[in-house]
Amino acid sequence: MNSHPTDQACLFCKIIAGQIPSHKLYEDDQVYSFLDIGPLSPGHALVIPKGHYLTLDQVPDEVGAAIGRVLPKLSKAIAQATGAASWNILQNNGTPAGQVVGHVHFHIIPRPDPASSARDGDLPGNGLPFGWPAGEVDHEAAAVLAQTIMQQRP
Amino acid sequence: MNSHPTDQACLFCKIIAGQIPSHKLYEDDQVYSFLDIGPLSPGHALVIPKGHYLTLDQVPDEVGAAIGRVLPKLSKAIAQATGAASWNILQNNGTPAGQVVGHVHFHIIPRPDPASSARDGDLPGNGLPFGWPAGEVDHEAAAVLAQTIMQQRP
Repeated sequence: MNSHPTDQACLFCKIIAGQIPSHKLYEDDQVYSFLDIGPLSPGHALVIPKGHYLTLDQVPDEVGAAIGRVLPKLSKAIAQATGAASWNILQNNGTPAGQVVGHVHFHIIPRPDPASSARDGDLPGNGLPFGWPAGEVDHEAAAVLAQTIMQQRP
Repeated sequence: MNSHPTDQACLFCKIIAGQIPSHKLYEDDQVYSFLDIGPLSPGHALVIPKGHYLTLDQVPDEVGAAIGRVLPKLSKAIAQATGAASWNILQNNGTPAGQVVGHVHFHIIPRPDPASSARDGDLPGNGLPFGWPAGEVDHEAAAVLAQTIMQQRP
């Protein structure tokens, strides 16, 4: 049995502890998964560490590994159960990036309509809509930035 | 040394093999990371398995675990190097969900402006914009769906 950091005021910690009910999909020593109650599409699920971490950079190696093992298996199960062959994984860190609950959570968001596109704009019930305002890389600046990132020894 | 499934026509397999150059951020036996050349913001990175898998449901346990170990560490390094304290992780499966390259990839997308919101719409250079057309859960249907998903034994 693992012992996890918890926050007694945290909604997701209460769900993990069974103090608030949820539609559970999966559970192991490190990971809990349940259906989102404000779904973007049927089968919209959350995968969370049992430990309370605000953002992904705080997640220890073996907790990250445990989540990484679950995402593929649960994606497959949700695709089979819903019939949606396309889906997005989204995980938001910080309020500007859209994080609402301060406990790391990965969304698995099915896209049921195979004729649709994530860039079609908001279609309620059809999953995550997003834009893609891509820039062009500046190779000189990118080389410097890549060195700076590698110096942090990820 | 691991042996990985590869696809000789795949852009990302060529990058991993060094046949196409990239701004490398990280590499281990299972995982490779590099800067996206069409960035949504400075530091926009891709984290990919060295093995060629089309969608996340095809990724084996230990490859998923390896990716799960890298995402937190690389998120931290990118946040430190760019100064962006907010970021999104996005992984798209299937063309309707916005997948463009047919080799599993996780985006790490910094959101540099702390006064902005992911729901502000497209702001070039400021990360991933997305909508959130949430529905309300039908608890009866959700209970049935959760059972159906759990029967797939994720």
